Amino acid sequence: MQNHFFKNHGPFKVSEILNILDLDYDNDYQDQNITDIKDLFSANLNEITFFHSKKYKDIAKNTKASFCITTENLKEELHNNCKPIIVENVLVSTSLVTSKFYPTSIDDNFDDSVSEIIDTEFRNKVKFGKNVLIGENVTFGENCIIGHNTIIEKNVAIGNNCLIGSNNIIRNSLIKNNVKILDNCTIGKHGFGFFPKVDKNLRYPHIGIVLIEDNCEIGCGSTIDRGSMSNTIIGKNTFLDNQIHIAHNVKIGENTIIAGQVGIAGSSIIGNNVKIGGQAGISGHLKIGNNVEIAGGSGVIKSISDNSKVMGYPAKNIREFLKENK
Amino acid sequence: MQNHFFKNHGPFKVSEILNILDLDYDNDYQDQNITDIKDLFSANLNEITFFHSKKYKDIAKNTKASFCITTENLKEELHNNCKPIIVENVLVSTSLVTSKFYPTSIDDNFDDSVSEIIDTEFRNKVKFGKNVLIGENVTFGENCIIGHNTIIEKNVAIGNNCLIGSNNIIRNSLIKNNVKILDNCTIGKHGFGFFPKVDKNLRYPHIGIVLIEDNCEIGCGSTIDRGSMSNTIIGKNTFLDNQIHIAHNVKIGENTIIAGQVGIAGSSIIGNNVKIGGQAGISGHLKIGNNVEIAGGSGVIKSISDNSKVMGYPAKNIREFLKENK
Amino acid sequence: MQNHFFKNHGPFKVSEILNILDLDYDNDYQDQNITDIKDLFSANLNEITFFHSKKYKDIAKNTKASFCITTENLKEELHNNCKPIIVENVLVSTSLVTSKFYPTSIDDNFDDSVSEIIDTEFRNKVKFGKNVLIGENVTFGENCIIGHNTIIEKNVAIGNNCLIGSNNIIRNSLIKNNVKILDNCTIGKHGFGFFPKVDKNLRYPHIGIVLIEDNCEIGCGSTIDRGSMSNTIIGKNTFLDNQIHIAHNVKIGENTIIAGQVGIAGSSIIGNNVKIGGQAGISGHLKIGNNVEIAGGSGVIKSISDNSKVMGYPAKNIREFLKENK
Repeated sequence: MQNHFFKNHGPFKVSEILNILDLDYDNDYQDQNITDIKDLFSANLNEITFFHSKKYKDIAKNTKASFCITTENLKEELHNNCKPIIVENVLVSTSLVTSKFYPTSIDDNFDDSVSEIIDTEFRNKVKFGKNVLIGENVTFGENCIIGHNTIIEKNVAIGNNCLIGSNNIIRNSLIKNNVKILDNCTIGKHGFGFFPKVDKNLRYPHIGIVLIEDNCEIGCGSTIDRGSMSNTIIGKNTFLDNQIHIAHNVKIGENTIIAGQVGIAGSSIIGNNVKIGGQAGISGHLKIGNNVEIAGGSGVIKSISDNSKVMGYPAKNIREFLKENK
Repeated sequence: MQNHFFKNHGPFKVSEILNILDLDYDNDYQDQNITDIKDLFSANLNEITFFHSKKYKDIAKNTKASFCITTENLKEELHNNCKPIIVENVLVSTSLVTSKFYPTSIDDNFDDSVSEIIDTEFRNKVKFGKNVLIGENVTFGENCIIGHNTIIEKNVAIGNNCLIGSNNIIRNSLIKNNVKILDNCTIGKHGFGFFPKVDKNLRYPHIGIVLIEDNCEIGCGSTIDRGSMSNTIIGKNTFLDNQIHIAHNVKIGENTIIAGQVGIAGSSIIGNNVKIGGQAGISGHLKIGNNVEIAGGSGVIKSISDNSKVMGYPAKNIREFLKENK
Repeated sequence: MQNHFFKNHGPFKVSEILNILDLDYDNDYQDQNITDIKDLFSANLNEITFFHSKKYKDIAKNTKASFCITTENLKEELHNNCKPIIVENVLVSTSLVTSKFYPTSIDDNFDDSVSEIIDTEFRNKVKFGKNVLIGENVTFGENCIIGHNTIIEKNVAIGNNCLIGSNNIIRNSLIKNNVKILDNCTIGKHGFGFFPKVDKNLRYPHIGIVLIEDNCEIGCGSTIDRGSMSNTIIGKNTFLDNQIHIAHNVKIGENTIIAGQVGIAGSSIIGNNVKIGGQAGISGHLKIGNNVEIAGGSGVIKSISDNSKVMGYPAKNIREFLKENK
């Protein structure tokens, strides 16, 4: 993952990282610099990563990260060159370290950097409605249109020929070419990610963005949350109907069609050429293959292999479901 | 269907229509004028229609249209006076011809014809909030109220005593008397209708409107899409709760009550005195009879006859469902 | 329930109340004053209440109300000191009497009392975006932030350290400290409550408010309706994801977590430490205990006891459901 928009406040010395985690053991690399925090797959030399579930042990074995926040139980699975930092709760510790590198990625207060578009460099480049607001670090390609009352908050890059409707709020998003966003959408807010704590839940950082590829369409009233440690992605020529919710870290493939009121929970991966009927729901952390068809109203709680057609709650083979429910 | 709002750019000669469809066979009526395109039921003399499924053969037999876009297989079903125009894909061809007659019915870019209401003739007629925008070809009856930030885009006729809340976007809609639209609704946008094509889906035209009859109420955050070749209709005294999605071409009867988060897919017809519980979903192209009760959360995938009570997914007789699920 | 916001137009004499109900029998207390209308549990001396279902007979036996709108059948269940007023339809009559005491609680027209925040006393107290509107009878604590285009209509009290996003509409609500409301929410409108009548449904009054306790978070595009005769309550440190609908009179406990697109129908009570998965629906008038877990997509149609885990539609014990649906 490239981090387009959040400013990395690192590097930090190992000793500083240990300090945040209330760990004070001595070691030989106290003064070594850590330059960034990334997931197991993306992290590189001199970067820190995290490893909290056996599910990821194959990736852990091959990680290029120099350091890894993990547990006593899991540390043996790590690549030899990756030094474990042992903690009790990997996700909470990861959250603390991420907040150190990216302190502005937690809160999503409204963007007070915005100006009326008429007062910006875009007044002659973009066709726009009334009351359009533009934040810092926003760019537009050619031939873009933005409707009334839409707020393009900070950290948004929009390609060519994009049609953005009215009453939208967009931030922390990379929108490619020929994308159409209808009305009333909220795109790029942090996801519903936090550590439940009695009296006061603890939000974790969301340093990912929303990436919308060429030729997509996003229906009215939809919400697409940005990723926490990776990006939320809508693949090329994928069309979303109205009132759809796409949670953080979801990755949707190309040429996929999603009907109204569908919800996709956090971190699920949807393939290419998938068709999802109205009101279907997909649980978190699943993998839906290519060319899958999910009937409207289905509740998908397991991963689905390529070319399957499913229906029901829990979703199963559609022929089986219809036979059982004649 | 009367076409209230989209300007018909016809008539076109038969030869021009054939040209759009890349057909160049000769015939005796090359120079005849075609004045409009309508569905099988509504089309009249000198108009063109389309016929793509055996399901409609009874209507095809009686159509008054002079021309019909159809297939080799279906042409024998047409009325004698209706001349077939044979194509490979009826819906794609119909879309191309419709776009010729109604070139402005495809895109739904924001309406740049709007003015602040204070600068219009309505400033003394309508009671209004801050930042209200009004497009071209908009009319109001007596005693109407419009809340803050609401955008009445072009092609909207509103009757007497209507209460429109804040943050709504309305276009291409005919709203009768005593209608109440709460907040944050999007009404009259094109539906989720397109021909899937790898790399770039092809939108089809939506020349229908949204028609909301007397005494209706539409809840917060609802979306009602306009029709493609016919209208989307909400019957008299029908009440919709919050976050409801009504897709294109849906027709809902009178005195019907629809609870929160319900979704009705394209072209379904709902009767009078129907009650639909929260989060229920109704698939497309179904017919739900009068006095039907659909329990909350149900998924309706077949048509339902008058006076039935159903529940479940797929929805079945409610007593049967509850017996099986004690 | 305290009535924070709606002005009580009483007291009214008993004879005036009888008059509204088209009752003209004589009695000894014609000239006695009635000061308010409340539910059976909350009503006090010299107040009127209503009693329409045997379900509430234990509360009726102990009510402190001086008068009660009820039926011939139910009147024997009332406390001795509470004088019955016999009607045919308790709820319709209650609605009429409530409208007399609180005539402004039925319609939810946009608030035309609002001013630009820059023109109010809050311009130096609150940090705010563009186009923020503030109604009458609004208060703020310290360190509050309000995003662009948000409308705080009349009758809203907001505590300290609250973060209100953009495009929200809030009215008739009491929001405590450290509450975060993201974007595009509509909070405090009347619920979906009315008496169905052919040709013209009859709305009933909503004199309750929305009460959001400390440390809550409300996701984008959510709707929370205010109560009819009691309040809608979101308990301390409860987090709601995006596109959630909370109907009138719902009471949610503390430390509860509700995922995206969940809907809770009117008057249901949800306990503490409850977890509700995405798209689950909860029918009206149910009681969900403490520490309950409801799987995503479930449809809950019965009350659930403490510490249960349920799944399915209708929701049942999760282990049972998963065994049956392997």
